[in-house]
Amino acid sequence: MNLFVIQNFELQCGIVLPEAKLGYQTHGELNSDRSNVILYPTSYGAQHPDIEWLIAKEGILDPSQWFIIIPNMFGNGLSSSPSNCAECGLAEQGFWFSHWDNVRAQEQLLRKVFGIERLALIYGWSMGAQQAYHWGSLYPDRVERIAALCGTAQTTDHNRIFLESLRSALTSDPTWNGSGFDGFPDRGLHTFALIYASWAASPAFYQAGLYYQFGYSSLADYLERGWEANYRKRDPRNLIAMIDTWLRCDVSDNPIYKGDYALALASIQAETLVMPSASDLYFTPADCQREANMIPKAKYQVIASIWGHRAGNPYQNPEDANFIRQAIALLIAPV
Amino acid sequence: MNLFVIQNFELQCGIVLPEAKLGYQTHGELNSDRSNVILYPTSYGAQHPDIEWLIAKEGILDPSQWFIIIPNMFGNGLSSSPSNCAECGLAEQGFWFSHWDNVRAQEQLLRKVFGIERLALIYGWSMGAQQAYHWGSLYPDRVERIAALCGTAQTTDHNRIFLESLRSALTSDPTWNGSGFDGFPDRGLHTFALIYASWAASPAFYQAGLYYQFGYSSLADYLERGWEANYRKRDPRNLIAMIDTWLRCDVSDNPIYKGDYALALASIQAETLVMPSASDLYFTPADCQREANMIPKAKYQVIASIWGHRAGNPYQNPEDANFIRQAIALLIAPV
Repeated sequence: MNLFVIQNFELQCGIVLPEAKLGYQTHGELNSDRSNVILYPTSYGAQHPDIEWLIAKEGILDPSQWFIIIPNMFGNGLSSSPSNCAECGLAEQGFWFSHWDNVRAQEQLLRKVFGIERLALIYGWSMGAQQAYHWGSLYPDRVERIAALCGTAQTTDHNRIFLESLRSALTSDPTWNGSGFDGFPDRGLHTFALIYASWAASPAFYQAGLYYQFGYSSLADYLERGWEANYRKRDPRNLIAMIDTWLRCDVSDNPIYKGDYALALASIQAETLVMPSASDLYFTPADCQREANMIPKAKYQVIASIWGHRAGNPYQNPEDANFIRQAIALLIAPV
Repeated sequence: MNLFVIQNFELQCGIVLPEAKLGYQTHGELNSDRSNVILYPTSYGAQHPDIEWLIAKEGILDPSQWFIIIPNMFGNGLSSSPSNCAECGLAEQGFWFSHWDNVRAQEQLLRKVFGIERLALIYGWSMGAQQAYHWGSLYPDRVERIAALCGTAQTTDHNRIFLESLRSALTSDPTWNGSGFDGFPDRGLHTFALIYASWAASPAFYQAGLYYQFGYSSLADYLERGWEANYRKRDPRNLIAMIDTWLRCDVSDNPIYKGDYALALASIQAETLVMPSASDLYFTPADCQREANMIPKAKYQVIASIWGHRAGNPYQNPEDANFIRQAIALLIAPV
């Protein structure tokens, strides 16, 4: 991983980080006219190695053709995060990262390190899609295409309640002291993982017992090894920090759009592929379609899947991966 | 409320209650041939006063025509429950109530107190629907009609994860000592209420902000007064006990059907109205329809509503109430 450092970076919450750190990974070669750049931001809980699977020759993002940059989201433990930054905190300390912060830092990385002014594509799933919408809205003349999978440009009220339940699961733990943790929140993390598992895959997914084909011996085994174990790898403060970003996701909550959500979406000039999963319980097709209708050059295409929210990150799921690969190939085909 | 006491009642978990207590309320008059009986079991967290609103002249259940009995579910705080029974515990103590227990106790109440052998209708929403399915399957020749709103005869895996997350929210609280609570679980109950609110109403419900019309000033206000305050009225052990019943809901898990789910459903002889809500996130239309297909005289009819699971208990929702009222009128009309 490479590290890009920004001195005295003022966050949207008002706090200035003396050294904001942006961890990133690249794949492929930047061509001479810098026209082959794909930005691929991280999703909730993920670090760049978790999402690199789809970068492959003839994969969804092909590094033999494209220069692909994965910027790690603030709060994910590799870029500046509560776990690695003395000045960083949580909302309890009046501290939070926003996508405005993520996107401005990424813009500096691209420009100052690589001299990149234009992006051929921003590809993002879930919180990655949120960042993609922010990019398209904040730098409309610099983003040619957006692929926004299973995400919205503004967090809905219903999504907010899910997020508050996740946050409350962690801050309900006995180790929570009101501003941080005095130990590892085993109880809270267990609840957290159950909530996540109940929301991020669909009823039909569980009905079909699809997880058995990946070596899990029971529902309980799947919940523990397939869900809880992954979140236990993360610092619980970082899990909260990323929730705090998600809760505040609003493409118009910035000095440019000043809360005018319709204007922020209408300003996106990119060819935008809005791609929800038919069975996503929290970024619902209806919510995604409503936003697609507000984006001038949006195409709305549903992934017909029972994988729920996870259809948009189909690392175990060749059928949905193939569907997405074909849609992206069409989106980035030379005209 | 009336109380029916059963001496030495053996529960399905193997524990014998010296005095099992069944609290119940009646409305209307039993006619001379006992042909006008409607059984109306309680739902999760509810006590009989909470569900009496639909009993009204020209309401969904009309007490001028029908003799309506509401039996309180074990664990709800009025019938035998952890809060009022020394012998009662939680799964941690190897103790749980099942619907097999609920239905057998109700059967004794009906027979011994009222001499009732046949039911014109069992009307149930959510855990009430679970009890209705159990009745129809365990006493097929004694149940003429079933109205099962927003419930299934067997708890699905997906539903189970939601329930485990609710349970874990409570047992994550600092006051949980491994077998009970050393105080009121404020933190856990807060998480619990958020989880419930996120599941039991739909994305579209929150999108439409329907709660504002009931005097709530904000989403936070609605979550606190509209959800959390109601669950705070209940003993947290009872909240767990009812989850433990729900987790074990399986119409075939009893000595009669010995796990043969298809046979248990096929045995239901009642005219059965299977009525999910189109936007129910945990008793999904697909799950309800699958069961309807297995019940010989089932009619499947969806409530077209954005109220989510709560469409089936439409006390604030005249449109859905009217739809249900008409469907029930048709179900119980003289042939």
